[in-house]
Amino acid sequence: MENFTFHNPVKVLFGKNQIAQISQEIPKDKRVLIVYGGGSVVKTGVLQRVKDALENDVVFEFGGVEANPHYETLMKAVDIVKTEKIDYLLAVGGGSVIDGTKFIAAAAMYEGDAWEIVKSYGGVVTDALPIGCVLTIAATGSEMNNVSVVTKAETKDKLFFSSPFVLPKFSVLEPEITFTLPKNQTANGVVDAFIHILEQYITFPVGAKVPDRFAEALLNTLKEEGPKALNTPDDYSARANIMWSATMALNGILATGTPADWATHMIGQEITGLYGLDHAQTLAIVMPALWKFCKADKSAKLAQYAANVWNVPLANEADMADKAIEYTVDFFESMGLKTRLSHYGLGEEIIPQVITKLVEHGHVNIGEKQNITAKSAEEILRLAL
Amino acid sequence: MENFTFHNPVKVLFGKNQIAQISQEIPKDKRVLIVYGGGSVVKTGVLQRVKDALENDVVFEFGGVEANPHYETLMKAVDIVKTEKIDYLLAVGGGSVIDGTKFIAAAAMYEGDAWEIVKSYGGVVTDALPIGCVLTIAATGSEMNNVSVVTKAETKDKLFFSSPFVLPKFSVLEPEITFTLPKNQTANGVVDAFIHILEQYITFPVGAKVPDRFAEALLNTLKEEGPKALNTPDDYSARANIMWSATMALNGILATGTPADWATHMIGQEITGLYGLDHAQTLAIVMPALWKFCKADKSAKLAQYAANVWNVPLANEADMADKAIEYTVDFFESMGLKTRLSHYGLGEEIIPQVITKLVEHGHVNIGEKQNITAKSAEEILRLAL
Repeated sequence: MENFTFHNPVKVLFGKNQIAQISQEIPKDKRVLIVYGGGSVVKTGVLQRVKDALENDVVFEFGGVEANPHYETLMKAVDIVKTEKIDYLLAVGGGSVIDGTKFIAAAAMYEGDAWEIVKSYGGVVTDALPIGCVLTIAATGSEMNNVSVVTKAETKDKLFFSSPFVLPKFSVLEPEITFTLPKNQTANGVVDAFIHILEQYITFPVGAKVPDRFAEALLNTLKEEGPKALNTPDDYSARANIMWSATMALNGILATGTPADWATHMIGQEITGLYGLDHAQTLAIVMPALWKFCKADKSAKLAQYAANVWNVPLANEADMADKAIEYTVDFFESMGLKTRLSHYGLGEEIIPQVITKLVEHGHVNIGEKQNITAKSAEEILRLAL
Repeated sequence: MENFTFHNPVKVLFGKNQIAQISQEIPKDKRVLIVYGGGSVVKTGVLQRVKDALENDVVFEFGGVEANPHYETLMKAVDIVKTEKIDYLLAVGGGSVIDGTKFIAAAAMYEGDAWEIVKSYGGVVTDALPIGCVLTIAATGSEMNNVSVVTKAETKDKLFFSSPFVLPKFSVLEPEITFTLPKNQTANGVVDAFIHILEQYITFPVGAKVPDRFAEALLNTLKEEGPKALNTPDDYSARANIMWSATMALNGILATGTPADWATHMIGQEITGLYGLDHAQTLAIVMPALWKFCKADKSAKLAQYAANVWNVPLANEADMADKAIEYTVDFFESMGLKTRLSHYGLGEEIIPQVITKLVEHGHVNIGEKQNITAKSAEEILRLAL
């Protein structure tokens, strides 16, 4: 078990009618900017519920944050923050809106070129506006962590940064809000969370039983509840279990004492940045290929996962690892996600471009053993064709 | 799944050589009081390591906090805090020292009679001194929660209070410190944590899969690692897994969306208060008897526990529940804890006194269904003879 620091002060308000509580979380004298996305929160009435709950005199709105939020869009919000002296941000949306709000929060307090925040992985951030969240999709876990992913549309750079200053003060998690999600978004969310867990779990054994078993607990829950939510969108129990699992998947607990392998995210992000595939789609393509390429390094944990999540009978490790990969692919496909580049009309012609971006972003020597080079990434992409 | 609020801002520094980091957590200008217990931290050198790590100019010490810390002792520390203008408390010890430090932190900022803090269950607390912890035994989870149990020796009242103001700012968890614990303290700690988990798990099913599976994860870990730590006290992996499990057992995560039954603690605390048995000893006596008495209410969860922790084959629920009780008793006994009052020379003559205290403290209508009356508690104690 490795040394670790765990510190997650985000307050979670979970369950039915939690939006009503936000007025107790945001000081009345704050000048609030509500940040949201493409308008589904208008249609579903969530935005109106939020506005009704707020007791602040000054409330501005900024809609139009796109999936994989654009730096260019977010900087317009930063202008409003500065002009209107906003001092509290309220994200109402999914991972993209929350990630975007984190960037706005940091950029509003940063004197230099705001893209430096992303380029420095958050290292230059020394302050940020306070953030509250009302979550509308169970997926990224952004509502309870310090990470944000932002895309510069001009250069097709999709990059993450992290900073303790952008941790939300509170997040409202109302499972009922997710009843009306389109099927593909529900599926993307479940697969995204599932893969976050696997990236912290499928590495090599270090005897850290708590995060290992917690990972298995969340994987089993998503495996059982994901299909229920697809079939019965208003199944409260399924939606609630998925939502809490997705939040727990990336709030730091699974990383307590274990290595992690974020290579799937690194490679997947370049594919979204360049070709616009959904985030979860890219992860579902890259992870199985990466596992095949790194099987020798990961076979012990793949076999453990096969036994404890897919009930594969004990056998030799390599065979169990193969089963783990096979069942994972089947699960993604059963949720409606494709698992190969060719399923999206992409072929080997994309490989040089993805590798160029990876190298440009310094994302080489990645993976839990820092042994996934640009050359390895090329072979992984070939296995994903 | 029930509504819940989760908020735990305690920073955990876990692993080897973490004491060295405390100087980064305590501002240099703070006037620190180190609070510790019976002197084992002197003997083992932990106290010296803490003093060497501190970079504060003003550091006082207060030793002698006993197991089940006495109000009378703690008030002496409160005097020192006031006289010496202490503004940071550093607990170096186990649950009793940390609980005591929480009381000192609240009492030092409270104008009235400090026992009101306990009598109001913490309701009167509106401020407290900041607290840091260096944990020396894996057991109570006090290092990552807002609860404290204090005993008034004069009246033999052992009572808890809780307040967000007494949450530690940080806690250092070094598994190696626990290598030198006496065997019975290691066993007490494992059983205490095990029972904390069970009190949040063995109620009735509400479909909250995350806390249920997390509970099973921690129970399985303690079941496997507890005996290892008894047999091989310097097994780092066992000590680390036990320590992180015990902290996670009572930091709020297991209570996310589920009911809880603290009746075992309520009844057990009276026995410690009156007759001085170790905290874990009383819990190991009361819980099996309480389960027998409440079997009908708890059989679904007892059967789930039997299957997922003790690998009992699926059968009818009542039989599985019986097995769960039997295996739990066996586990406590295998760890060296006795499970009946008579094992400690206590008989039915104690029952009226325990019931009188329970009623006096208002601890009736307890349990997850608030249906454990004073009369029920009497029958539970009879089943524990």
